[in-house]
Amino acid sequence: MTITLQDCQARDAADPLRALRELFVLPPGTTYLDGNSLGPLPRATAARVARAVEEEWGRGLIRSWNDAGWFDLPQRVGNRIARWIGAGDGEVVATDTTSVNLYKVLSAALSMAAEDAPGHRVVLSERSNFPTDLYIAQALCAERGCTLRLVEPHEIEPALADGVAVLMLTHVNYRTGAMHDMAALTRAAHAAGALAVWDLAHSAGAVPVDLHAAQADFAVGCGYKYLNGGPGCPAFAWVHPRHAGRFWQPLAGWWGHAAPFEFTPEYRPAPGVARYLCGTQPVLSMVALDCGLETLEASLPHGGMAALRAKSLALTDLFIALVEQRCGDAGFALVTPRDPARRGSQVCLARAEGAYAMVQALIARGVIGDFRAPDILRFGFTPLYVGYEDVWNAVEQLHQVLATGEWRSPEFNRQQAVT
Amino acid sequence: MTITLQDCQARDAADPLRALRELFVLPPGTTYLDGNSLGPLPRATAARVARAVEEEWGRGLIRSWNDAGWFDLPQRVGNRIARWIGAGDGEVVATDTTSVNLYKVLSAALSMAAEDAPGHRVVLSERSNFPTDLYIAQALCAERGCTLRLVEPHEIEPALADGVAVLMLTHVNYRTGAMHDMAALTRAAHAAGALAVWDLAHSAGAVPVDLHAAQADFAVGCGYKYLNGGPGCPAFAWVHPRHAGRFWQPLAGWWGHAAPFEFTPEYRPAPGVARYLCGTQPVLSMVALDCGLETLEASLPHGGMAALRAKSLALTDLFIALVEQRCGDAGFALVTPRDPARRGSQVCLARAEGAYAMVQALIARGVIGDFRAPDILRFGFTPLYVGYEDVWNAVEQLHQVLATGEWRSPEFNRQQAVT
Repeated sequence: MTITLQDCQARDAADPLRALRELFVLPPGTTYLDGNSLGPLPRATAARVARAVEEEWGRGLIRSWNDAGWFDLPQRVGNRIARWIGAGDGEVVATDTTSVNLYKVLSAALSMAAEDAPGHRVVLSERSNFPTDLYIAQALCAERGCTLRLVEPHEIEPALADGVAVLMLTHVNYRTGAMHDMAALTRAAHAAGALAVWDLAHSAGAVPVDLHAAQADFAVGCGYKYLNGGPGCPAFAWVHPRHAGRFWQPLAGWWGHAAPFEFTPEYRPAPGVARYLCGTQPVLSMVALDCGLETLEASLPHGGMAALRAKSLALTDLFIALVEQRCGDAGFALVTPRDPARRGSQVCLARAEGAYAMVQALIARGVIGDFRAPDILRFGFTPLYVGYEDVWNAVEQLHQVLATGEWRSPEFNRQQAVT
Repeated sequence: MTITLQDCQARDAADPLRALRELFVLPPGTTYLDGNSLGPLPRATAARVARAVEEEWGRGLIRSWNDAGWFDLPQRVGNRIARWIGAGDGEVVATDTTSVNLYKVLSAALSMAAEDAPGHRVVLSERSNFPTDLYIAQALCAERGCTLRLVEPHEIEPALADGVAVLMLTHVNYRTGAMHDMAALTRAAHAAGALAVWDLAHSAGAVPVDLHAAQADFAVGCGYKYLNGGPGCPAFAWVHPRHAGRFWQPLAGWWGHAAPFEFTPEYRPAPGVARYLCGTQPVLSMVALDCGLETLEASLPHGGMAALRAKSLALTDLFIALVEQRCGDAGFALVTPRDPARRGSQVCLARAEGAYAMVQALIARGVIGDFRAPDILRFGFTPLYVGYEDVWNAVEQLHQVLATGEWRSPEFNRQQAVT
């Protein structure tokens, strides 16, 4: 049955999450399908950041470390993140970058594995994992005399048998939108004597995550995608409480010390999550993340993650169906799994020719997705602010880009770095 | 000869840097002597950060990585820092925290030393170095099978003979304000076959620094003290160009890759300074740092660092003289060197009893300095915005705190964390 614009409008009208898009600044004429790269600006953030600058820093000066609560921002923001990833209070800190946090937790995991399973010397990951994860693992393996082994998704479980110390995976793949079964793979890792480290960059705030139910060991994630924390805002780290007391890593800065202001020359790690910290955190970017989380919390009275997930799947299902309906003969291959249980909150299309240029042509038409080398058009669907008519419009513009052939124009074929 | 308030006012009237204080937001009734911990808010920063939030993030969205120049902020801000530390264009990046950057450069230095001087297995530092430096070095030494040896300042040169791989020092001591002779100690380190790593946290923007003249090997420093970049803004890292191609460290995140957006699974370090980067940087805190540096640059037409240094020494000389004149019998010991060549931009007084409480009583009177355990009252004098009458007022209030005995009040004796 053909889907019409009116169908999409009717679904928007019936959408219980519809009002939440008013919480974001969305430039007129823009359909924003890149929240999986950088979430848009929540309306509340400008005033919150201005307060941090003008009142807390400007008037409070150094006193704001205490009076404005700057000190425990990493823990307070961490507690806000916890509910979206199935973690407990006091288990998460917001700090540093995903790459640096991955270094911390992978380092700690390798130290634990060296004690508990000294024969296990392999870090196992997926070949198409996000590169920074692989780079960090490569460098750390070189330091520790371990081996990084990269396999295809279907090879992960069989490969676990082979002396794996740590299974390190990104829950939702950045390029394909495919989602791993965290509980099953963690179980398989544990059965093979390995620890499981999860990167939640494309999961936190996007799909249901339950680290405790999965019995995961370590996790890291990103604040500026589905948590809408702003460009380059702090990332986060989680350690299962059963390992918290053993967590040890060489980024042993003063903020991870049991008593940083005693200024003792010997490092003594803090008893709680503070030991995952290293140096002083960027307060302005941290309060923006706090505000992003507050905005996400506005979904709680409307069903929270269950409602967000239902709408996310409805949006991605609709996009897939409309691409097939309107651009079925245009040479796109669906990269993202059709099975909703295996899909994140994005849809990726591969096309042998012109993928980069088509993304640029769409951007010129106000539909912002992104290109991922070598041949992927990637579209993120964030149910907080994307509606069904937006999906219609995105596919309509894609249809136009193809019908006009405008993507062949030189202006859309000049390569430029994008994040 | 007795110094009078009128003398101080006359010096303010004749001060060629006087107008620069108008570039800062200084709350009325506050004498701010804690810019060595957190620099105050430059007037231009609020609007600059608001533009980054509302226009660049809000309207530009993901496109601002290119269009607003977010991508090369670490290098552009690094280039602004370079002139204050005697580094060249394209040699410095603003990124991460001082602790994380120290980990990077110390790690790289140890790897180089392991190749060039394999028998050298000691990291030599000062016992009273800032603790985070010592913690990072401890943890890294444990990983690499090296030894961290801590000595008193006068023992540094003799200790270099003993298989030292890296001499790691903070140029200006956070507790005493004592400044090392960077050129002489670097020369001595090199003569002993060691590399020299300098922490410029209390130097950059505060005292003349010439890394090239000193032939230093590596340096790190802080953005939120004398560079006025705001709470927790990014720190910086510098590597001498002779080592740049050999710089290798395990925080090998995607931003340090030669082509981060090719998303190749193999790490290939960038040819230039980008290899000192790891993950995505906090843009809001980074633009605040950019603004802090722009504000510091306003001193250039008035003589730049030479003029700042001359005034800094005049302010600290005046403070020392006034404390002796007005509180000479109050039991304070001058911790900071009297010799201007050995003094940073701060003055520290030790007092066996009541140091913490006196700092609190001063804060209640609007004179903000800080306490450093166990017995130090620390006062930073930043010539950009501190004047001679401010020094008079600070000592007058200290005199009152002593004369009234108000520091004995319980309200000033409740310990609370301060940074």
